[in-house]
Amino acid sequence: MFQPELQVYKDKIEEGLDTYLPSPSAPPALLHEAMRYSVCGGGKRLRGLLTLLACTVAGGEWRNALPAACAIEMIHAYSLIHDDLPCMDDDDLRRGKPTNHRVYGEAMALLAGDALLTQGIKIMINSIPAGLECEYHQALAELVTASSSQGMIGGQVLDLAAEGKSINLNELKAIHRWKTGALIRAAIRMGGMIGRGESRVMQALTTYGEALGLAFQITDDLLDIEADPAVLGKKTGRDLEKKKATYPGLVGVEEAHRLAKAEINRACQALVPLAERGAILVALAQTVLDRNH
Amino acid sequence: MFQPELQVYKDKIEEGLDTYLPSPSAPPALLHEAMRYSVCGGGKRLRGLLTLLACTVAGGEWRNALPAACAIEMIHAYSLIHDDLPCMDDDDLRRGKPTNHRVYGEAMALLAGDALLTQGIKIMINSIPAGLECEYHQALAELVTASSSQGMIGGQVLDLAAEGKSINLNELKAIHRWKTGALIRAAIRMGGMIGRGESRVMQALTTYGEALGLAFQITDDLLDIEADPAVLGKKTGRDLEKKKATYPGLVGVEEAHRLAKAEINRACQALVPLAERGAILVALAQTVLDRNH
Repeated sequence: MFQPELQVYKDKIEEGLDTYLPSPSAPPALLHEAMRYSVCGGGKRLRGLLTLLACTVAGGEWRNALPAACAIEMIHAYSLIHDDLPCMDDDDLRRGKPTNHRVYGEAMALLAGDALLTQGIKIMINSIPAGLECEYHQALAELVTASSSQGMIGGQVLDLAAEGKSINLNELKAIHRWKTGALIRAAIRMGGMIGRGESRVMQALTTYGEALGLAFQITDDLLDIEADPAVLGKKTGRDLEKKKATYPGLVGVEEAHRLAKAEINRACQALVPLAERGAILVALAQTVLDRNH
Repeated sequence: MFQPELQVYKDKIEEGLDTYLPSPSAPPALLHEAMRYSVCGGGKRLRGLLTLLACTVAGGEWRNALPAACAIEMIHAYSLIHDDLPCMDDDDLRRGKPTNHRVYGEAMALLAGDALLTQGIKIMINSIPAGLECEYHQALAELVTASSSQGMIGGQVLDLAAEGKSINLNELKAIHRWKTGALIRAAIRMGGMIGRGESRVMQALTTYGEALGLAFQITDDLLDIEADPAVLGKKTGRDLEKKKATYPGLVGVEEAHRLAKAEINRACQALVPLAERGAILVALAQTVLDRNH
């Protein structure tokens, strides 16, 4: 019942991205093409959806959160481009297509990533809906902190440092709280802020976001073992190859499935005080558990 | 007479950078060390100085512009780290020290660059002096646009695309207007905005910044031919090696010197309406002409 509604929001994000990315014909055209290559036509848009939906759940108009949803998708895309570079994870496939540097070369991919981070910030400053200046300022602070050396980038560093090392479950959680958790948490909190959610709503959204982020990472680890590479759109078995610490690696596949389910339950539980208003976020959480890519 | 005064402002920027960078003991410590390695203890601080001085010339307190001055120095440092990477200019020396990736490896250098861009933005949002929210918002818009795919990053792309090709003087000017000009222009305009400069002052500062940016790039090209590598802190002759288009390459060394001087004159001329208030910027312009590194 919710899937078509989620698809409608996803389509809005695709349209928004096309609007907020630099025109492919504006110079330097090849850079803008490279930026669009990694942002458009693919991706689950989980982060953008969280921003739009949280805004509506908080009582705001989804349209007001569209610039923020597009900004976070651009920042997510930049992090993927840089992660895939040969000096990082050295991946050839992403979302079923050759990675950015395989198409445009390393230098252009590096710069396309830099430009997407910059463009995401630019949207948060230049495309603020009327009357929401304060909310966007607050949301931008949230977004930048989540993307910083003590957020997503810091998580990358910890993740690389842990390759080949033996770490425990708490250490693994700490890595993922930064590496993927911070941006997912920011996605939902930005939406809540732009929707002027009261503190009770912000609290519910934050707990939901934190649990969802953890569940998302656990399923990510599981997909690397269990998924069909054709559906996943990238090679599987890479974590083992690179000796990455993962949930299934630490606790086993079965227990990892149980943990993911428990986190999704915790996420949905946090929405109980919001009653019917939270239903669409419950539906979104279910798609994380059921994801096959 | 002005040199000691310029040094005082430069010292303020060094102190500010130490304050506004993440603590080297905060995790991930190695990332924060890598960020500091490329930002601290070196550099002319031209962009930061322009921001501080423009603020005072516009009638503001230098202290109010310090966060912006530090932000632009971090963004400049990020661009240098990424430029030096093997997939870009592949340089081993910068500011007399091994480049970031030579010390910390490519992955860490990439992430340190990403984190410095993010940190620069973060300061512009989280460290705004009281009562200057609007001015900082405007300054951040200026900074982000200057750093974007249609600013500094775009200039990098055009510069790489021009390697080995024959281009004319107007095309070269267009590359540099983006590659180095945009950030220098933003540096001075941010200071003017934070100092609440009236439009007559902003106009003078903007013309000054544009001319200074061009002169800076011409002297940069000349230093690559004429400088002592030990003083310059990096290898010389790299432009020729990489078949980069340069001013001396296009118009000859003598004419390039004349052009640099003419741009510095144009920069100083723009300050005439500001009378004595502009004197410190005239002094700064002179240091660009006299630079040996």
